[in-house]
Amino acid sequence: MPLWTIHHSPDAFTSQHKQAFARDITGYYTRIGLPAFYVVVVFDEHAPDSMLIGGEPASGALRVVIEHIAIHLGGSEEMKGAARSLDAVIAKHAAPRGLYYEFHVDETPRELWMVDGLEPPPFGSRAEAVWAARNSPAPW
Amino acid sequence: MPLWTIHHSPDAFTSQHKQAFARDITGYYTRIGLPAFYVVVVFDEHAPDSMLIGGEPASGALRVVIEHIAIHLGGSEEMKGAARSLDAVIAKHAAPRGLYYEFHVDETPRELWMVDGLEPPPFGSRAEAVWAARNSPAPW
Amino acid sequence: MPLWTIHHSPDAFTSQHKQAFARDITGYYTRIGLPAFYVVVVFDEHAPDSMLIGGEPASGALRVVIEHIAIHLGGSEEMKGAARSLDAVIAKHAAPRGLYYEFHVDETPRELWMVDGLEPPPFGSRAEAVWAARNSPAPW
Repeated sequence: MPLWTIHHSPDAFTSQHKQAFARDITGYYTRIGLPAFYVVVVFDEHAPDSMLIGGEPASGALRVVIEHIAIHLGGSEEMKGAARSLDAVIAKHAAPRGLYYEFHVDETPRELWMVDGLEPPPFGSRAEAVWAARNSPAPW
Repeated sequence: MPLWTIHHSPDAFTSQHKQAFARDITGYYTRIGLPAFYVVVVFDEHAPDSMLIGGEPASGALRVVIEHIAIHLGGSEEMKGAARSLDAVIAKHAAPRGLYYEFHVDETPRELWMVDGLEPPPFGSRAEAVWAARNSPAPW
Repeated sequence: MPLWTIHHSPDAFTSQHKQAFARDITGYYTRIGLPAFYVVVVFDEHAPDSMLIGGEPASGALRVVIEHIAIHLGGSEEMKGAARSLDAVIAKHAAPRGLYYEFHVDETPRELWMVDGLEPPPFGSRAEAVWAARNSPAPW
């Protein structure tokens, strides 16, 4: 469900860094009960001539796009709180490397989402807990 | 209009598979009258260290993002029906190769969409049928 | 804030073309007062077998996805006007190279957006003008 696309400059991350980052992102969602396999993280590396910030070739920079499906946020304050939590996940991996970063979240309709041929169970349901425990989808 | 981005593991598809998949996607939309050229499919291959599911390097997996513009769906049941139809298109190409897949659809404002310098004609209009028949945009 | 993803055929652009295009995109937003560094442009090159239009391998083509966060547009006519302005920015770089193009814009919630650890200042605010003048984020 959450899909993170991390556009980044070359050499921002090693393979080990990528996995540590992806695991922290995954942990953010499993802590609220979502199955780990819902969390997909794509790292997209771009040469400086192919990622430009303010018209200038980017280096040492991340641009993160987060797509949320399963859970939508209520009001403006709840959104800002979520943004600060997500920011902390990114900052943990960007700050030690001196990387500049920007992120935004889009929210899309839950009904237009399926996993491996199945409609995902409702958020907080017993079936979802089963999916989380087995870390894979199953008929419910 | 529909833009499909198919994030996939290396070697999930040959060039021939990609085209067969893209043609089935295109057929899904032309059957309801949309011009074939509206349908853009991008295949984005990611090494296992750059596509992670649940914090683990992915192999044999697809993550499909579908952006719909021209036609928005009505209620919850209509959306679920559409999701099942889209699922069938993906499953046809994922299942025989044993690929795990997840997809979601986003819907965006029709007014913020143009094709080769032209505002696209209304859905179901005579002008749209002309675009479909010539398979290219033209002043209307 | 605006994120432009430009899917393109190989050799559609040189590095110089990419920068000139990205600068014109940036200028579109700085003219209304936004900081230049808000504007991120990613060029994503795809071989013909990995970008298909109407089921056929694409060449000489662009598919542009624009994500707007900071400013949302009011009604249908305002949207269409914005689309025509954005179209002019793309056409300037696509037409001389004979490139076919399509674009659409998505709008996402402003509250779910942060820049380098900071909540961006309101549109048109004095703090935003400071960010624009220094071309970098700063506590406000």
